[in-house]
Amino acid sequence: MSYDCIVIGAGPGGMRAAMQAAQAGLSTALVEKEDLGGTCLNWGCIPTKLFLGATAAGPMLHVQQKLKGAEGHLRFDLAAMQQRKDRFLKGSRTAVGKQLQALGVDVFSGTAAFRGPGTLAVTNAQGTTELAFAQCVVATGSMPAAFPGLEPDGDCVLHSSHVLTLTEAPESMIIVGAGAIGLEMGDFFSRLGTKITIVEGMDRLAPTEDADIADVLTKQLKREGWTIHTGRKVASLRTVNGTAVLTFEDGETLTAAKSLMAAGRKPASAGLQIEAAGGTTVGSGWIKTDGCLRASDTVYAIGDINGRTLLAHAADHQARYAVRHMCGKEQAEYASGPMPACIYGHTEVMRVGTTVAELKAAGKSVEVSVSQLIANPIAQSYGTTHGFVKVLWVEGKMAGIAAVGHGVSHLVAAATIMVAQQWTEKDVHSIIWAHPTLDEALEAAATGPRVVV
Amino acid sequence: MSYDCIVIGAGPGGMRAAMQAAQAGLSTALVEKEDLGGTCLNWGCIPTKLFLGATAAGPMLHVQQKLKGAEGHLRFDLAAMQQRKDRFLKGSRTAVGKQLQALGVDVFSGTAAFRGPGTLAVTNAQGTTELAFAQCVVATGSMPAAFPGLEPDGDCVLHSSHVLTLTEAPESMIIVGAGAIGLEMGDFFSRLGTKITIVEGMDRLAPTEDADIADVLTKQLKREGWTIHTGRKVASLRTVNGTAVLTFEDGETLTAAKSLMAAGRKPASAGLQIEAAGGTTVGSGWIKTDGCLRASDTVYAIGDINGRTLLAHAADHQARYAVRHMCGKEQAEYASGPMPACIYGHTEVMRVGTTVAELKAAGKSVEVSVSQLIANPIAQSYGTTHGFVKVLWVEGKMAGIAAVGHGVSHLVAAATIMVAQQWTEKDVHSIIWAHPTLDEALEAAATGPRVVV
Repeated sequence: MSYDCIVIGAGPGGMRAAMQAAQAGLSTALVEKEDLGGTCLNWGCIPTKLFLGATAAGPMLHVQQKLKGAEGHLRFDLAAMQQRKDRFLKGSRTAVGKQLQALGVDVFSGTAAFRGPGTLAVTNAQGTTELAFAQCVVATGSMPAAFPGLEPDGDCVLHSSHVLTLTEAPESMIIVGAGAIGLEMGDFFSRLGTKITIVEGMDRLAPTEDADIADVLTKQLKREGWTIHTGRKVASLRTVNGTAVLTFEDGETLTAAKSLMAAGRKPASAGLQIEAAGGTTVGSGWIKTDGCLRASDTVYAIGDINGRTLLAHAADHQARYAVRHMCGKEQAEYASGPMPACIYGHTEVMRVGTTVAELKAAGKSVEVSVSQLIANPIAQSYGTTHGFVKVLWVEGKMAGIAAVGHGVSHLVAAATIMVAQQWTEKDVHSIIWAHPTLDEALEAAATGPRVVV
Repeated sequence: MSYDCIVIGAGPGGMRAAMQAAQAGLSTALVEKEDLGGTCLNWGCIPTKLFLGATAAGPMLHVQQKLKGAEGHLRFDLAAMQQRKDRFLKGSRTAVGKQLQALGVDVFSGTAAFRGPGTLAVTNAQGTTELAFAQCVVATGSMPAAFPGLEPDGDCVLHSSHVLTLTEAPESMIIVGAGAIGLEMGDFFSRLGTKITIVEGMDRLAPTEDADIADVLTKQLKREGWTIHTGRKVASLRTVNGTAVLTFEDGETLTAAKSLMAAGRKPASAGLQIEAAGGTTVGSGWIKTDGCLRASDTVYAIGDINGRTLLAHAADHQARYAVRHMCGKEQAEYASGPMPACIYGHTEVMRVGTTVAELKAAGKSVEVSVSQLIANPIAQSYGTTHGFVKVLWVEGKMAGIAAVGHGVSHLVAAATIMVAQQWTEKDVHSIIWAHPTLDEALEAAATGPRVVV
C-alpha cells in the first residue's frame, strides 16, 4: 500500500498531523503501536487533569476550614475515580477513532520501522506489512526516562503510568523530580491523604522557572505538609522488603510506601531506524530536524521526539505546520511564537514566553512588573492569596508573563495573546478588564511599576 | 475651598476618577456619603464574590459525589463568613483611603448637592460646606429599585444589601429577578441549603442574554433543585406573619422564609440637584450625558448614574476617559469597545460584545459557531459538562462571544481581546492554545463550523 502521507504515533501531534493531512486531500495512514491518543490522552495530561479536577474541592475546602467558614469531611474514592477515568479515556479513544475513519485515515496497529526513504514496515502479532509513502511524519513522542539505580520496577518504584493505575492511595510517597509531573501527582496524592516527600536534584522546585516562582511553591507546599529536598543527588531508588528506599549520594536514606520516578523523559525512537530514511538522532535518540521540522527529505519529526518542546500543544502546533509545509502552503521556517506552559493543581504555575534567566542569558535588558494575588478580590474570595503575576519587558514590550498561585492557569490564553502581540502598556488599556476577575491581577502586573532585574 | 476636580461618589468609577485626576496633577476632592468603595466593594461585586468563592467547594463536591468519586459532608458557617467579609471590606476601605491620602485627594464625608455650575454643597451632621470646582465628576451610582407592592421591608422582604448581612441561611427564599444579582445570590444560598424559588417577569432566566444561554441555566438550576417561574408578573411581595408571601398577578401565591427583591436598580441622584449645574435627568433620575460623558459644561456623569452600563468595570473605564477628556488629552467621543460581563457561580455566564438578538435587530447578518463543553477535558475533569461557548460572526469577524457553564468566566479576558480586535479565524491560529485548558473550548468555538442564525 502507498500513501501520500504516513504518520507514526497517534498522540496529539500525530493525530493532528493525520487529520490535517487527510483534510488537505492527501491519502493518509496513521501507525500506532498502542492506544490512540498517545501519552497525553492515556498516560499524561488528560488523566492527571481528570484526577486534579475531580479532587479540586478538597484543598479548597481545607482553606475555608482554616478560615473558619466551613467544616466537614471528605473522602475521595480512587478506585471509583479510576473507573470513571478509564470510561472517559475509552470513550475519547473511540471518538478520535471515528474522527479518523470519517476523514478516511487508515489506521495501522503495530510498531513502525523505516526500510528506506519512502518505505515503512509495520509489525504486529499478525506479521509485518510494508507501506510506501511520499512524506512521513514521525510523532512517536517520549517516555519516562530511567536512570541506573533508579529504574521503576512497578512494585514500590513507579513511573507516572504506574501511578495513574493505583486504586489505593499509598500512605506515603517519595517523588523524584519536581517538574510538572512530580508536582501535579504530588498535589493529587496529597489530597488523598498521602504524605509527600519530593526530591529535586536542581536547587529548587519547578527548576525551569525563575526562582521567585519556586519560592512561592515551596512555601505553599511546605504549609500543606510536604517534605522538600532540593539540590540533592539521588544515588538509588529501590524496592526493599515492600518499601521504597531512596538513598542520596551522601548516604542518607528516605523510605515511603511508594515512590514515583518523575525525573526526565526519553525519546521513543528505539527501533524506528530513522537512519534508513535519511534521518539522524542526537543524545538518547532525539530526532534531529532542520528549520522546517524535517529529519530528511521525506520525513518530518514533530512533537516530543524532536526534543524541542515536550508539550502536547507544541506537538499540535508543529503538526499543523508540517502538513502545511508538506503541501507547499508554507515556506518559512517553523516558529512556535511564545510558548504557554502550566503546572496544574491547587497552587499553579503559568508561563508564556521566556524566563528572566533566559532573557538575561541572551544579553537582554529586562524590566519586571509584578502584582501580588493578595490584592486581588477573586484570590481573596478563595482564600488563596499567596502568589503573584509578573510581566517581563524588553524595550517596552512584553517578552514573557509568569504567575504562581491558585487558578493562575486561567490566565494563560490572555497572557499568550499579550506576549505573542508584544503588548506595550498602552495595549493593556485597549480593552475593558472585567471586574472582579483574577485577570485583574494580570492587568495590575502589566500596568505596575517596572524594576530592572 | 476650591478644587480643579471634585468627584461625587466613591464607588469604582468615582475612586478611579479621583485617583486619575490627582495623578494628572489636578487638585482633587472626593465626596462620599457612606463608605469608600461604594456598592461594588461594600454591597455588590466584592461581598458576593467572597461568598461564592468561600463556598465554591460545595457544588464541586456535590458533582463528584454524584459521580461516586467522593463522599463526605460539608457545612458552611454564614456567621463566620460574614465576619471574614466584614474584616476584608474594612481592610479594603482602609487601603483605598490610604491610597487617596497618598495621592493628595481630600475626602469629604457627606451628601452632595449642586448650588451652581461651579459650586457644590456637602452636608453632614456637622453642617454644610461649600466647595468650588472647575470640573465635577458625578459617580453616585445606583441602588436597588423598589416597585409598588414589592418594597423591601428588611423583615422577610429583603434587597441585596439586606441579604448580604444575614448570619443564618433561611430555610427557603423567593428571589424576584433572574439577572446577575438574583442568580448569584440564589446560587450562594442554595449552597447553604436554602430552597430557592426564582421568579422572572421576562420569558427566561438571564433575560439580557440569548435564549440558548438561558436554556442551559434553566436545566442546570432545575437539576440543582430550584423552582423557576418565568414570564409571570408579580403583583405583590410582603411579609405576612413572619413569612414572605409573593402573589402573582393571576392570584397564585408562593411563600418562603425570606424573599429577595433583585429586579432592577434605580439611579442614586435624588437630592443632587444636577439642574443647578446645568444637567438634566431622564426616567427615574438617570443623568443625561453627551457623547463625551458630560452632563453640562462643568459636570461629567460616569458609571451607573448615566444609565449606560451598570457594571463596575464600565464605570472604571468611563472614569479614565472623563479625566483624560477633562485634561484635554482626549477629544474623541467616548467609546467603550466591546463590554465584558459575567454572572458568577457554579454555572456561569460570560459575554463580550453584542447578543445575536441585538445584532439581528441592527440588521446584521449573523453567523454563529459553537463548541459544547462536554468535548472539553477540563470541563470533564470537574464533571461539569453542561454548557457551551459560542462565537458571533459578522462579515467574517468576531462581533461577540458568549458562554454558559462551569468556569466560563475564566474565558472573559481572552474573549474581550478577541472581540475588541475583531479576530478572524486566521487570528485564532496566531497563538498556541495551551492544552488542556477550558480555553480550548473557546478555540474550538472560534474554529468550528458557522451557521447563519
